[in-house]
Amino acid sequence: MTNDDGRMETPLTRLLGIEHPILLAPMAMVAGGRLAAAVSRAGGLGLIGGGYGDREWLEREFALAEGAPVGVGFITWSLLRQPELLDYALEQSPKAVMLSFGDLAPFAAKIKNAGCRLIAQVQTVAQARDAVAQGADVVVAQGTEAGGHGASRATFPLVPAVADAVGSVPVVAAGGIADGRGLAAALMLGASGVLMGSRFYTTEESLAHPAAKSIATGASGDDTIRSSVFDRLRELNWPAPYTLRSLRNEMTERWHDDALGLNAVQAEERTRFKAAFEEGDFRIAPVILGEVVDLIREIVPAGDIVPAVVTEAVARIRSANHYAPG
Amino acid sequence: MTNDDGRMETPLTRLLGIEHPILLAPMAMVAGGRLAAAVSRAGGLGLIGGGYGDREWLEREFALAEGAPVGVGFITWSLLRQPELLDYALEQSPKAVMLSFGDLAPFAAKIKNAGCRLIAQVQTVAQARDAVAQGADVVVAQGTEAGGHGASRATFPLVPAVADAVGSVPVVAAGGIADGRGLAAALMLGASGVLMGSRFYTTEESLAHPAAKSIATGASGDDTIRSSVFDRLRELNWPAPYTLRSLRNEMTERWHDDALGLNAVQAEERTRFKAAFEEGDFRIAPVILGEVVDLIREIVPAGDIVPAVVTEAVARIRSANHYAPG
Repeated sequence: MTNDDGRMETPLTRLLGIEHPILLAPMAMVAGGRLAAAVSRAGGLGLIGGGYGDREWLEREFALAEGAPVGVGFITWSLLRQPELLDYALEQSPKAVMLSFGDLAPFAAKIKNAGCRLIAQVQTVAQARDAVAQGADVVVAQGTEAGGHGASRATFPLVPAVADAVGSVPVVAAGGIADGRGLAAALMLGASGVLMGSRFYTTEESLAHPAAKSIATGASGDDTIRSSVFDRLRELNWPAPYTLRSLRNEMTERWHDDALGLNAVQAEERTRFKAAFEEGDFRIAPVILGEVVDLIREIVPAGDIVPAVVTEAVARIRSANHYAPG
Repeated sequence: MTNDDGRMETPLTRLLGIEHPILLAPMAMVAGGRLAAAVSRAGGLGLIGGGYGDREWLEREFALAEGAPVGVGFITWSLLRQPELLDYALEQSPKAVMLSFGDLAPFAAKIKNAGCRLIAQVQTVAQARDAVAQGADVVVAQGTEAGGHGASRATFPLVPAVADAVGSVPVVAAGGIADGRGLAAALMLGASGVLMGSRFYTTEESLAHPAAKSIATGASGDDTIRSSVFDRLRELNWPAPYTLRSLRNEMTERWHDDALGLNAVQAEERTRFKAAFEEGDFRIAPVILGEVVDLIREIVPAGDIVPAVVTEAVARIRSANHYAPG
C-alpha cells in the first residue's frame, strides 16, 4: 500500500501534493513554523496554528518555516474579528488553509480564489455536508477525543458517516490518532488520511512547554476532560458547543462542575492562572492533550514520526492476513 | 484474512470457539433469545441481555434460544442485588458471561469455576487492567459513542491503549461499529473482534419496539445524547459515571440540563413516561442507539449481518492495496 518510493498514496496525498497522508493539527501557540516545516519536510503537511490571531507571532512562525511547503489553520470565529490575517497568510502562499469552528462562508471564496486548498474541520455530519456545499476541498472529521477544542461526537462512527455524506471529497480523521494503528484504522473507516495533534504536541519542535511534554509521556487518556474552565480563565469567549480537552488538574477538579463558583472569584483565579501559565505550573495551567495520550511515551523529532506512522500502518494492514490460516 | 471456510479467525474466535469475531451486545430488554441465537447461528456470539434481573424474562429468552450456543450479559451492580440469577444463567451452560458496569470480584471465580468464559466490558484503561487481574478472559473496550449505558472515553484511542495494557488477552471494540469498515478498523487498532449493539437493535429479531427500529433507519448520530434523564424516569439508580446514550427527544431536550426541575415534577413525568413507553411514543420514551446510527439504513435479519460485516471488512483490508500503485 505504499508505492515504489515508499509513499502512501491516497486521494488526500494526490489532492494536496504530499507524500504521506498525515497532517499536523494547527494547534494554537504550539504548532509553530519549525514544527510545521518538520512535518512537511517528512512528507506530511504541517499547518501553522493561526490561533487567536497574533500577527507578529504568525510572521515569526512563517519565517521559521524557512520556505517549507506548509499550510496554516485558523479558528474561524476568531478570524472573523481580524480577517486581514487571512490576507497576510495567503500572501505566504500556503499549501492549504484549514478553518475550524465556525462558518466558512466569509472566507471560502477568498481562499479558493487565491488558488489555495480549503480544508474544513467539522464535528458533525451536518457540518460536513455544509462544508462541502461551501467548497471545502478536504473535510477533517474531528472526534470528541481530540485534545484542544472540539465538540461531542466521537471519531470512530463520525468518520464513516462523514465519508458517506461528502461523496468524493477526501476525509481526514482527527481525534484519537497517534500511531500507525490509528492511520490504518482511519483508512478502513473511509478516511484518506489523518490529522494528529497530541502526537506532535509532544515533539522536540513543538512550542508546548517542556514540562507539559514531559507530563504527557506519563499521562493516561483516562485522565483527560472536556471543559470550559480554561477558556473562562483565558477570557476566550468560545461559542457553544465547543469545549477544550486537556489533562485534568487542580483547576478542572475545582471548577468544572461549579461555573457559578468560578464566576464569583474569576479575577483572582485569572491572576493565579496567568502566573502559572508563565511559570509552566501545570497543576493550574492546562496540558492540552487528547485521549490518545496513552500511546505517547517519548518526545522525538516530528520528522521521525511521519514515516514511522506510515510504516506501522502498512505493517498493520499486512498483518491482517494472519487471520487467514487457510 | 478469512480461511478456506470463509471464517475470520482471530484470537477471540479461537478462544470462544466461534467462526466470526462479532458479538451481540447484551442489550437489556432488546437482546432476547431469538436475536442471540440468530447471531450465534450466523457464526458470531449472541449474548442475551440479563438486564436488571427479571428471572421470568431470562427463562423465556433462554428457551427461545432453542439450544443455540449463546451467552448472557449482566449489569454487574444490578446482579449484586440478585446474585442467584447468575446461578440460573450458569445452569444454562452459556458459552460466556459478560459483566459490565461494576466490580467483577463477587462473580469472577464462580463464572470461571463453572468452566465458562468471563467477558468484562470496561470504559477505561485502568478498568481493563483490573479486569484482567481478576481473571477476565476477554476485555470489551467500550467507547462513549455506544448506545445505552457507558462512560466518557471514546473507542478510537481506548482500544489500542487497552490492547497495550492487557497483553495477550483478546480485546473487543465496542461503540461506533455497525459495518465491515468498523470491524476492519477495530482489527487495525489491536482488537480481535467487535461487539455491536445499535446494528442488532435494528434487526427483525430485536425486541425493540418496531417504531423505534423505524426511527433508527432515518436518524443521525448528530442527534444522540448521553444523559441520566431516562434512568431517573425509570427509577434506575445508575451509579456515576454511567449515563445512557439515546436519540434526543422531547424528554432530553426538556430535562437534560435541568435535573432540579425534573425532581420537582418527577411523579407526573414518570407516569407520562410509563404510558409513552407502553404505547411506543418515542417523543417521550427513548430510542436507545449509539452515534453509529447514521450507518444503519434498513431493518434486516440479524443472521444476515454477521457474514456481511465480515465480507465487507475483508474487502476493506484488501482495498488498502489501492494506495500502492507502484
